[in-house]
Amino acid sequence: MKKIGICDTTFARFDMGGAAIDELKSNVTDLKIIRKTVPGIKDLPVASKKLIEEEDCEIVMALGMPGAMEKDKVCAHEASTGLIRAQLMTNTHILEVFVHEDEEEKEEELKTLMENRARQHAQNLIKMVFKPKILEKEAGMGKRQGKEDIGPL
Amino acid sequence: MKKIGICDTTFARFDMGGAAIDELKSNVTDLKIIRKTVPGIKDLPVASKKLIEEEDCEIVMALGMPGAMEKDKVCAHEASTGLIRAQLMTNTHILEVFVHEDEEEKEEELKTLMENRARQHAQNLIKMVFKPKILEKEAGMGKRQGKEDIGPL
Amino acid sequence: MKKIGICDTTFARFDMGGAAIDELKSNVTDLKIIRKTVPGIKDLPVASKKLIEEEDCEIVMALGMPGAMEKDKVCAHEASTGLIRAQLMTNTHILEVFVHEDEEEKEEELKTLMENRARQHAQNLIKMVFKPKILEKEAGMGKRQGKEDIGPL
Amino acid sequence: MKKIGICDTTFARFDMGGAAIDELKSNVTDLKIIRKTVPGIKDLPVASKKLIEEEDCEIVMALGMPGAMEKDKVCAHEASTGLIRAQLMTNTHILEVFVHEDEEEKEEELKTLMENRARQHAQNLIKMVFKPKILEKEAGMGKRQGKEDIGPL
Amino acid sequence: MKKIGICDTTFARFDMGGAAIDELKSNVTDLKIIRKTVPGIKDLPVASKKLIEEEDCEIVMALGMPGAMEKDKVCAHEASTGLIRAQLMTNTHILEVFVHEDEEEKEEELKTLMENRARQHAQNLIKMVFKPKILEKEAGMGKRQGKEDIGPL
Repeated sequence: MKKIGICDTTFARFDMGGAAIDELKSNVTDLKIIRKTVPGIKDLPVASKKLIEEEDCEIVMALGMPGAMEKDKVCAHEASTGLIRAQLMTNTHILEVFVHEDEEEKEEELKTLMENRARQHAQNLIKMVFKPKILEKEAGMGKRQGKEDIGPL
Repeated sequence: MKKIGICDTTFARFDMGGAAIDELKSNVTDLKIIRKTVPGIKDLPVASKKLIEEEDCEIVMALGMPGAMEKDKVCAHEASTGLIRAQLMTNTHILEVFVHEDEEEKEEELKTLMENRARQHAQNLIKMVFKPKILEKEAGMGKRQGKEDIGPL
Repeated sequence: MKKIGICDTTFARFDMGGAAIDELKSNVTDLKIIRKTVPGIKDLPVASKKLIEEEDCEIVMALGMPGAMEKDKVCAHEASTGLIRAQLMTNTHILEVFVHEDEEEKEEELKTLMENRARQHAQNLIKMVFKPKILEKEAGMGKRQGKEDIGPL
Repeated sequence: MKKIGICDTTFARFDMGGAAIDELKSNVTDLKIIRKTVPGIKDLPVASKKLIEEEDCEIVMALGMPGAMEKDKVCAHEASTGLIRAQLMTNTHILEVFVHEDEEEKEEELKTLMENRARQHAQNLIKMVFKPKILEKEAGMGKRQGKEDIGPL
Repeated sequence: MKKIGICDTTFARFDMGGAAIDELKSNVTDLKIIRKTVPGIKDLPVASKKLIEEEDCEIVMALGMPGAMEKDKVCAHEASTGLIRAQLMTNTHILEVFVHEDEEEKEEELKTLMENRARQHAQNLIKMVFKPKILEKEAGMGKRQGKEDIGPL
């Protein structure tokens, strides 16, 4: 039984954690999912690390929606830096799944992007944990999450 | 008895720490609050870490008001990075409660924002410590602190 | 007997370390001051940490004057980040006392600012070490160092 | 038998890891190569560290293609910072081999650059592991990877 | 016998490491110098840390020439951040000696600057290791390396 951590925020405008969990459960049965919701993306690093060290998760998804203002961009940078540091302190992958609020102009498209990116990173997680050789075959293939693959040169 | 750390600054132009403490005490009785005031936001990371490691606080609020100049924005970034690092070193949440001096044009509105954000993050702290399942229900709901919730897409 | 570290640079254009030491000695008798001068502000983090860990200082002032060019701003950011990291590694406060070379246009005013900021942060140090309750009373009061206090909203 | 780690991404649009491995195998026989492919460049730091600590690699190449948008530049910065941190935590070199998607305008030239830079950094790896004295002779010689050497002043 | 580490790059367009070594040997006899040349400035942090921890150097000079493009500026920032982190992890000074390729317009002047800065930082190293009290006398004197001292206010 693999333990997977899902860490998301109340700040985001779509339930990305819920979508990721649904995608995982639809594709893999042998999972135990532990979810933790925090206020904002800057709370994700320590929450993810606690899922690893206190709940024994062997991989975590950290999902969030940085806002569109300049100061939100800085927050996203701080959160990302913290997520990488948390990974290095634990030798454990934390998949960062961020959708910037200004990636799409229309609300409906933003919502779709948030759901798709969460689901496709959940697929990445499945490959990393259960089928790492598939990722190796996709090396350099211009894969994208939430939008169409751009493909190799 | 839960020990809560409150860390704030003399640089800020409103007593955010006082507002947070008032909010906590009005809503929860079983608390011991330890407060530490430092000169500026760059002093918050180590002060917060000491509240955790030397005073046994199980969660900390770090409250401050970054100034409006470009160099103040850099200070805020450094302080935030340090607060995240402090959390990762201690496996303990530190809720960052910053109001940028230029978030509002009028002084009265800035003051109101500082008070409201401090109080609403105090409410977040209460949920995190006492009612974590409530936060999970609010995942992806577009919650904001100090301003109106933007809501889900 | 409290041990205080003073760390400054040869790059700065005013003897900020000297001013800080003078202010400390004029106000407190029960002090041992250990001074270390390094070439530039990027040398301050490790020098400050060595004052803490190898010389047993219980608090350090790190004084410097970042230059006015864009690359100097980056240096200041790196030095500040390092000073915060050093504090977190030692659970010890290091008061950063920086005056940017472009904070004042006239040389004489820059010199005055450097001296005043060094002295007023020395006063902060005295409060932090000897009278921490005074700082708590000043929380949110809009205090500034080297320039006039802006005051509370 | 030297163990070399190769860490690359599915996001990149050319199989840089494959090119590096081909270059290494064409030039050195006494190698064991362990490859790990991850989704994006922000996953490289922990993957590289795991190759060092869990697979006993004595040096790693981390290959990736940061995108052309502003937020991709920030990702690259976060990944690079993480790769340096991983090196410092392990006292082991990780050669960062990044080609920014906007370094060339034409797709064919971008592809050529990605292959050449991967191969020439593989040559650097060979020098670092097997012939360190050659690098010393090249000190200050204006060497470049993937493009023509600029040469000394 | 003092062990000094010299760490430089093949990317730089002048042999800064060679100049630093010449300056050190011309002024001090009781030295053992250990040199390590790496491809670029991002390789300097771990190489410097290895000189300290694996070769017992008690101080290191890290010399390099960041390029003139925007992405080179980011590299310089990452390298500097790593060098400060390496110092904090080892409680050992690493003198960063960087000349940005765009500090001078003419190649001959750039070359002169690179040599002078390397030599003058070597003089700083000598003071730090052998004559620390001289640096204290120079505190706040507006010293520069590679260009004329600007002097005190």
